[in-house]
Amino acid sequence: MASFKSMNREELTAVRNQLQAEYDAYKAKGLSLNMARGIPSKAQLELSMGLLDSVNSSTDLTGINGADYRNYGILDGIPEAKQLFADLFHVTTDEIIVGGNSSLTLMFDTISSAMAHGLLGSTPWASLPEVKFLCPVPGYDRHFAITEYFGIKMIPVPMDENGPAMDFIESAVASDPAIKGIWCVPKYSNPVGITYSDEVVRRFANLKPAAKDFRIFWDNAYCIHHLFHEDVQLLDILDECKKAGNPNMVYMYFSTSKITFPGAGLAGMASSKENITAIKKRMTVQSIGPDKINQLRHMKFFKNLDGLLEQMKKHADIIRPKFEAVDSTLTEQFADSDVATWSKPNGGYFVSLNVMDGCAKRTVQLCKEAGVTLTNAGATYPYGNDPHDSNIRIAPTSPTVEELTEAMKILAVSAKLAAADKLLSAGN
Amino acid sequence: MASFKSMNREELTAVRNQLQAEYDAYKAKGLSLNMARGIPSKAQLELSMGLLDSVNSSTDLTGINGADYRNYGILDGIPEAKQLFADLFHVTTDEIIVGGNSSLTLMFDTISSAMAHGLLGSTPWASLPEVKFLCPVPGYDRHFAITEYFGIKMIPVPMDENGPAMDFIESAVASDPAIKGIWCVPKYSNPVGITYSDEVVRRFANLKPAAKDFRIFWDNAYCIHHLFHEDVQLLDILDECKKAGNPNMVYMYFSTSKITFPGAGLAGMASSKENITAIKKRMTVQSIGPDKINQLRHMKFFKNLDGLLEQMKKHADIIRPKFEAVDSTLTEQFADSDVATWSKPNGGYFVSLNVMDGCAKRTVQLCKEAGVTLTNAGATYPYGNDPHDSNIRIAPTSPTVEELTEAMKILAVSAKLAAADKLLSAGN
Repeated sequence: MASFKSMNREELTAVRNQLQAEYDAYKAKGLSLNMARGIPSKAQLELSMGLLDSVNSSTDLTGINGADYRNYGILDGIPEAKQLFADLFHVTTDEIIVGGNSSLTLMFDTISSAMAHGLLGSTPWASLPEVKFLCPVPGYDRHFAITEYFGIKMIPVPMDENGPAMDFIESAVASDPAIKGIWCVPKYSNPVGITYSDEVVRRFANLKPAAKDFRIFWDNAYCIHHLFHEDVQLLDILDECKKAGNPNMVYMYFSTSKITFPGAGLAGMASSKENITAIKKRMTVQSIGPDKINQLRHMKFFKNLDGLLEQMKKHADIIRPKFEAVDSTLTEQFADSDVATWSKPNGGYFVSLNVMDGCAKRTVQLCKEAGVTLTNAGATYPYGNDPHDSNIRIAPTSPTVEELTEAMKILAVSAKLAAADKLLSAGN
Repeated sequence: MASFKSMNREELTAVRNQLQAEYDAYKAKGLSLNMARGIPSKAQLELSMGLLDSVNSSTDLTGINGADYRNYGILDGIPEAKQLFADLFHVTTDEIIVGGNSSLTLMFDTISSAMAHGLLGSTPWASLPEVKFLCPVPGYDRHFAITEYFGIKMIPVPMDENGPAMDFIESAVASDPAIKGIWCVPKYSNPVGITYSDEVVRRFANLKPAAKDFRIFWDNAYCIHHLFHEDVQLLDILDECKKAGNPNMVYMYFSTSKITFPGAGLAGMASSKENITAIKKRMTVQSIGPDKINQLRHMKFFKNLDGLLEQMKKHADIIRPKFEAVDSTLTEQFADSDVATWSKPNGGYFVSLNVMDGCAKRTVQLCKEAGVTLTNAGATYPYGNDPHDSNIRIAPTSPTVEELTEAMKILAVSAKLAAADKLLSAGN
């Protein structure tokens, strides 16, 4: 079969009718599969069951500094956990906060605090006529939800395989003091799976923002979530920012949500000492400190960074076949058409699929009607607005390989059907 | 020995010099005892060690609604924990959120949200020229720290054994739309230990605030922290608010910080469905939900409200002798003077001591120099400003009875020495 776009109307109609028959057959099966969010599978959760035994009533809950972790005290994380996060971020322990169970909350709180109180003495963002954030796209819907919630105007920035469009970013932040931040998932990005090149990281570190309180929100959620037992190197941005004389320009975030148990894991952030000191000052008002026992539980389970990395290999072994199944099924299904391209990530939690322009919403809707729930079309763009209506995020980790294969077939048929209808209605 | 105030200069000087000798003798002992915060003792922490075994790798972590508590999902608490908190607050489960590990954070977030977004459609507080809170005094320093952090002007309100001065409150909130809230610890209040009378609760519920977004922050931190195995009844304020046609006027808070492990416990809040729905809407942006496994851990440990109440009896048995030691030592030490009064609470975590006007700061300083660290004088007032420089908060739970007895003697000698010096310098 040739390319959809090169078919004449008769050929395309025949293909379309065949697709409809295939789609109807899938629909008749009455499947029910939710792939809307990137969540660990049961097999992945089983990897961490030992975490539930690592602290028990016989455990000495005295910390390395003599503190009783069962009682009040310690605002920024137990020293053991701070060391682990410091090793992970390649920073010192006074550049680390190990907080509660969610890096999303740490990000929300950073922005909430900037709105109400400003950063390091700057004007509170809420007092300014306008605040803008740059948003590399496609990106993470929960980032966009935070900035939207605070009324921050979001400006999409295109990305390629090296990262966001730096020419645009450099010029925008240098000329517009209302631009106060940018959302980045620098490694195995959500959803495209790319890792920022060294040049991109260095250009980030060397930005000359008009706003002195401009911040890079560096959500390194997937920094050790390799799929192939092989790390893709990402340059240390805090190091580069220090070299460039911009030590306070970046906040880095991480959590174990997709390593142990989502909700029962640890989240942390890293930044310059000056930023961390300011954040801890707020935390004395906001918090009695994190769950130290759960931090100890994690440290006894992992021991150190090596232990954490070992666990990641086991995760990779479980989820790699799923990513492979997605890729091979999509390759097979789209072989006879020119209506889709997709990412082949080396890590992270997602595959990014681009269907024919104007077809993402319909494709997701068709999938849903056939029992396959995907992330809403548009979710990967600020305000849910994908200008091409083309991007669909695939979250392969939770279903089985068999379910995934079935789901990808349904997705492919739906995308092709939507494309054929689009072309036919456009008068092809 | 007679009253200090009725002594002549010569008598008082003799007493003063004797006190100085006593004080110097204590100081020479080189004690080191920190009583600054209300924290559980080791013996109390031991009561909850079973919590660390209640969930282990053999536990089925499937919830009553079929959810896998090891994975993402559930924003407002597991149904089991919501039921416990609903039983505790006498509300329905849709009037409950069981959040993270700290009720302080829930309070901070409520106010932060009111500042940035307003409440139920009201003008964001940060956009108003002035926002004021009423602060019954003496009160809880961490409440005052939140309102101070957000630039909210705090107005002290006197209290008596029935609660805050309701005449003043009724008139103030009715006439001043800038008054948006009031901090209350309605049961075994921090630090005085009083419980609001039924009449006070009803008058709260029937307030007619000029500000439609006026809220009562009802921090029921000590609602089951009885000292004498006997509950002091507090009227249900949400019920009363509903009867009065003010269902949205109150937020109630609670945590298990002083029941299981501070930092590793559960915190929750209760309010009208409309308020809870609004808060959950914010939480979808801010949070991936609470630690469901730790919630399950608590539920398996306590089973239900009866289990929680049984645990409280054990706490009471441990801390009651300490409160009794404080009272008997203060009674003995101040028998020969007229320079101090103190509370005799039926529950909670504190004894409130009033020394002679103008003597609290000096007393706390003298204690510190003799090795006994108390809560800073003034901390129980907004901005740390006790206009009488008289109130000192005593936190008896952590030290042993022997340590407490020694500390109370030092405190008494210090208070008397400060009083004698004050009277002498005033020319008595």
